[in-house]
Amino acid sequence: MKIEHLGIAVKSLENADLLFSKLLGAEPYKHETVEREGVTTSFYKTGESKIELLEASNAESPIAKFIEKRGEGIHHIALGVENIAKEVERLKKEGFIFISEEPKEGADNKLVVFLHPKSTNGVLVELCQEKP
Amino acid sequence: MKIEHLGIAVKSLENADLLFSKLLGAEPYKHETVEREGVTTSFYKTGESKIELLEASNAESPIAKFIEKRGEGIHHIALGVENIAKEVERLKKEGFIFISEEPKEGADNKLVVFLHPKSTNGVLVELCQEKP
Repeated sequence: MKIEHLGIAVKSLENADLLFSKLLGAEPYKHETVEREGVTTSFYKTGESKIELLEASNAESPIAKFIEKRGEGIHHIALGVENIAKEVERLKKEGFIFISEEPKEGADNKLVVFLHPKSTNGVLVELCQEKP
Repeated sequence: MKIEHLGIAVKSLENADLLFSKLLGAEPYKHETVEREGVTTSFYKTGESKIELLEASNAESPIAKFIEKRGEGIHHIALGVENIAKEVERLKKEGFIFISEEPKEGADNKLVVFLHPKSTNGVLVELCQEKP
């Protein structure tokens, strides 16, 4: 497994893009809104991984709730897998709990599922697979 | 820049090692205590990046304080750089604030500095360079 990307919750994508462009010395290579997930995103290449900035696109967004509770900051880590269904099966057998077991379409042409942070030391872990 | 590693604060390295070994399907490749930083660490290879689990090695440890305030979870992101002094200079000019500007010896044979989360959208960012 590799770190496919790291998700960072921000209040303003516009401000955060200015900041992260300076920090990383590079511009975002894409912006994408996933309305079903309530997020507008911005992606940066960092080696083989990516940094994904996430802004809430509506008040019910999980990102809005996260920021309300914990402030801006690192929201999740996404692990890239070859076969997401197989990995869900393997990890369920190992006792991990999923927020929802059915992979859904996420940003950046991916199928994604999230493990529940209570089974992963407080870390929100996403598994993601490139869509076939 | 690439994501050199991701630091995760845990209460018990022993328990977290069991969990992350299952999650990542691989054993940690090293354990290391950095007493000056108040941490005992465990490292996992994830592609070109690493996951570093951090347990407090004493009550004054920044990790103990982090867990007390926010609970277990993702603590910092480390960006790998070629020349840490040059990057500190560049980022200072861009207006970023450092917790301390002088690179110090960190775990895993690295020189490290931390940017202050208040200048980086709540994200604790480490810069690290392989020691010459």
